[in-house]
Amino acid sequence: MNYKEAGVDIELAESFITNLSPNIELTHENVIKSKNNFCGLYDLSELNMTKPVLACTTDGVGSKIKLANHFKHYRTIGKDVVFNNVNDIICSGAKPLCFLDYFAIGKLDVNVGNDILGGIIDACLATNVSLIGGETAELPLTYTDGDLDLVGTCIGVVEKTNIFDPDDLSLGDVLIGLKSSGPHSNGYSIINRIVWENPMPMENIEQFLKPTINYYDHICILRDYVDILGAANITGGGIKQNLSRILPDRLTAVIDLGSFTVPDVFMHIQSLGKLTEDEMWNVFNMGIGMILVVDPNDADFVLNKLGDDAVQLGFLIKRTNDQSVIFN
Amino acid sequence: MNYKEAGVDIELAESFITNLSPNIELTHENVIKSKNNFCGLYDLSELNMTKPVLACTTDGVGSKIKLANHFKHYRTIGKDVVFNNVNDIICSGAKPLCFLDYFAIGKLDVNVGNDILGGIIDACLATNVSLIGGETAELPLTYTDGDLDLVGTCIGVVEKTNIFDPDDLSLGDVLIGLKSSGPHSNGYSIINRIVWENPMPMENIEQFLKPTINYYDHICILRDYVDILGAANITGGGIKQNLSRILPDRLTAVIDLGSFTVPDVFMHIQSLGKLTEDEMWNVFNMGIGMILVVDPNDADFVLNKLGDDAVQLGFLIKRTNDQSVIFN
Repeated sequence: MNYKEAGVDIELAESFITNLSPNIELTHENVIKSKNNFCGLYDLSELNMTKPVLACTTDGVGSKIKLANHFKHYRTIGKDVVFNNVNDIICSGAKPLCFLDYFAIGKLDVNVGNDILGGIIDACLATNVSLIGGETAELPLTYTDGDLDLVGTCIGVVEKTNIFDPDDLSLGDVLIGLKSSGPHSNGYSIINRIVWENPMPMENIEQFLKPTINYYDHICILRDYVDILGAANITGGGIKQNLSRILPDRLTAVIDLGSFTVPDVFMHIQSLGKLTEDEMWNVFNMGIGMILVVDPNDADFVLNKLGDDAVQLGFLIKRTNDQSVIFN
Repeated sequence: MNYKEAGVDIELAESFITNLSPNIELTHENVIKSKNNFCGLYDLSELNMTKPVLACTTDGVGSKIKLANHFKHYRTIGKDVVFNNVNDIICSGAKPLCFLDYFAIGKLDVNVGNDILGGIIDACLATNVSLIGGETAELPLTYTDGDLDLVGTCIGVVEKTNIFDPDDLSLGDVLIGLKSSGPHSNGYSIINRIVWENPMPMENIEQFLKPTINYYDHICILRDYVDILGAANITGGGIKQNLSRILPDRLTAVIDLGSFTVPDVFMHIQSLGKLTEDEMWNVFNMGIGMILVVDPNDADFVLNKLGDDAVQLGFLIKRTNDQSVIFN
């Protein structure tokens, strides 16, 4: 027996990464070329921070990977794994800097790998994030039948005094909702069941396979003009649970349900999956993938600047009971 | 259908993490209590760095997870995932600061989760690393039959001028070998096959289930006295491939094979797996899990300080052909 007979082709995995290196290097801003590559090196000193605080997240793409794998939407999940993490990073007020991926599969298929890493690299370029490391693991014993998993870690940095703080939010602050592209990466244990149990044309399936929106784009458009006061990434748990996380005890968010239209994809999920209205709002983003909090004086500017991507979702009022978010 | 019926118990996953929080917080040095927990926040400003460079790695535990899962050695792989990453971080000269884990399983078993996270927390405490984030993913469609995966990311920091550099190595520098506890996390596709194909008593299996050594311990013992010039984490690829990574083109490492005894566990793997001598040295660490490079004047001090953990493995000579590492 040798290592290759045991199902692990080290040379293939190495040539896979070597071939991608020129593309990976396109993402390298402030990266120090590591002479031994035991780890990725990002030169934070180039940013001239006064009191740097690191903001870090790890996240996968959940059961969306199963659907994407079946329909060979690999570039999509490559983007998802980056944007999921970047969208969490920006909720602290941080700027995302670098990213590391973990891609595990039973037997490395170079075309699949190229598509996934291609999506990751696209998303890193879109967010100006450096891909400084990662692991491609061939695990024939764990991942069978073509199964795979994909996980990412994003590291950002924020000045200590600029970390978003619920204490900075005030009565009357405006909630700006940024539209989602669909379910992003949440609720896919349910969506998978729906797809397997209900024959449907490919165009209907594709509504479940759109990549997560890169909301750092919106932050970059606004940041030179507007002081963003808070941000909530609407993932599992929906608007209510995620928005609650950024609110102080003294304030309640009032969401105007008339301010946006729930996209058709969620109606399809609800009817095919026979889900209750409550279940839908507690699992899915329902069309709003990110909520920003801004001063009322900035609201019109923000809405104007972001155009169709954004709606005025509601505002903050004094909290009088235990409800942190009210749908109106 | 609801989310729980689709195989995902969000409440269970949340209570699992909430119950572990007091232990996780024991690891929190310089961690800013995140008010919204979209990401983990590590206060780098407390370290007063002049020119900080981030050192980052992502690594799993490979197919060792399959064996550990079968024999319920969950604490072991919890430690492995931390030490694997920390041992990579220190090869750049960096100090490890914080860690994030990704633990994926088909159906969350709280006892398994507690043991894995328990191992992670133990290892974070042992390395003074803050566990600032992570993801516990229930993926019933990807991970079946009790399968699971475990990945970690470590973030460290190093002064730009202190990054280990092959250019700083000189003729005559001494190679110090730090002993391994066994195969650590490498070669487990082979080891799994051996265990499944050869009935053996549990005590023999346990030699494959020892946690990776925490070599940051050795760095901490030495760092106030000795200028370490380089470090190579001996993982997949063995001594030759990993040591090559830290050497300049002008130097060759001469390894004295008489300086250490290859532990029995590797003999067992070789005979049961019918592996060639070459294959063994190209896959396994063969008893040396980390190699440090020091000035010849520091070698005796280092060997004395580390006692039985270390051997004088060899030294660097002028390179005269294309061989970067020679076994003697």
